[in-house]
Amino acid sequence: MQSNQHPHPHIHPHDGHNEEHFESSDFLKDIVIGMSDGLTVPFALAAGLSGAVDSTKIILTAGVAEIIAGSIAMGLGGFLAGKTETDHYQSELRREYYEVNHFPEVEKQECREIFEDLGLSQNSVDIIMDELSKDKDKWVKFMMRFELGLEQPDEKRAMKSALNIGGAYIVGGLIPLSTYAIFNDVKTGFMYSVVITLIALFIFGYFKNKVIGQNPLSGAFRTMAIGAAAAAAAFFVAQWFEHM
Amino acid sequence: MQSNQHPHPHIHPHDGHNEEHFESSDFLKDIVIGMSDGLTVPFALAAGLSGAVDSTKIILTAGVAEIIAGSIAMGLGGFLAGKTETDHYQSELRREYYEVNHFPEVEKQECREIFEDLGLSQNSVDIIMDELSKDKDKWVKFMMRFELGLEQPDEKRAMKSALNIGGAYIVGGLIPLSTYAIFNDVKTGFMYSVVITLIALFIFGYFKNKVIGQNPLSGAFRTMAIGAAAAAAAFFVAQWFEHM
Repeated sequence: MQSNQHPHPHIHPHDGHNEEHFESSDFLKDIVIGMSDGLTVPFALAAGLSGAVDSTKIILTAGVAEIIAGSIAMGLGGFLAGKTETDHYQSELRREYYEVNHFPEVEKQECREIFEDLGLSQNSVDIIMDELSKDKDKWVKFMMRFELGLEQPDEKRAMKSALNIGGAYIVGGLIPLSTYAIFNDVKTGFMYSVVITLIALFIFGYFKNKVIGQNPLSGAFRTMAIGAAAAAAAFFVAQWFEHM
Repeated sequence: MQSNQHPHPHIHPHDGHNEEHFESSDFLKDIVIGMSDGLTVPFALAAGLSGAVDSTKIILTAGVAEIIAGSIAMGLGGFLAGKTETDHYQSELRREYYEVNHFPEVEKQECREIFEDLGLSQNSVDIIMDELSKDKDKWVKFMMRFELGLEQPDEKRAMKSALNIGGAYIVGGLIPLSTYAIFNDVKTGFMYSVVITLIALFIFGYFKNKVIGQNPLSGAFRTMAIGAAAAAAAFFVAQWFEHM
């Protein structure tokens, strides 16, 4: 559920090698998004119920229902968000072509401002604008990327992304639940669930932060802390709620 | 949990009015992210448990634990992702300054390629590069934005965003749970929960898609369909699991 505040991947449009790097980082990002929530939310839900009910069957049923609900919400939600992004790109593209054809002077002025903001002189901007406005495809491409900040979305990504995120959520969610199935006792299941999930969050946080070039150790502690905070809060609120 | 595939907001760096529009759309995006998952996952969890247990207290306890866990995972996760983005921007900024100072020719070549890709002639690119490389701050700013696709993140946003997303998740999650508390009977609570949550998802989907400029009616049906699919899947899997 960490949503759209992840660091933007680097965009190197001219370089085949880097585009590959870009794709593999999309895959990793999907896994990170799915797995960090999958490890955290079913873990915290199970921990919360452990403070309130005494049947592992209820905890496992709730956990499985949550994993199904969460993976569908994340996967399908991600898929439809990807479709929306594609639609949005296409409609903005049509609008830019329309504006370039019907209000070229307005568009030229918007374009000039981008270059002037970079500190280029009037003379240079004149030269650039003369060349850029000759080729409407290039001009629109420039406006899409540098005025609107939009890159052409990859349509196939939406489906792949949905499966990656949903799958990672399921895998992550089964880890904290597994101990309740193994020990068939709420207290023991809870204890081991806390231990293995915090270890899993630590390892996951370590590699996640290594991949994005951040300090892996502090990232590992941070990731573990979110999971622990969510589980502790769910535990105490559920207990309070049950005794109300 | 829909994550980072939402349409990019428009970036109009030179225009005060549009920056305001950008900020308010950040707020709306937070609400959309939190509310769409808040309406979907606790709804589907409660629906799933309705097919497997006969106590509204268990459903409410699980639902409340899920809302706490989900809002913390989304809110805190979003906050830390925002901090990571800020760190990432700062470290890339340092690297660009380092490269501009120590390998100016390599950086110039990378910069040239961006302009050449727009179809500008060698002559224009020469003029631009002469001017751009005179002011290192402008040059680095250009590389950050147009080579790496990075905008300076707003540090205050991370905390605001966490509260918006977490709060919207809680508000969204209380809607499907409320009927179980009101009717104190699983079947009746479930029935009314399905009705009011599907209506809420429809209304929410309508306005969400209106705001992002998509067809509101098809967006409303799409949003409702995700919630219904998640709830139906959770219901049948939990029932199957309970009877296993």
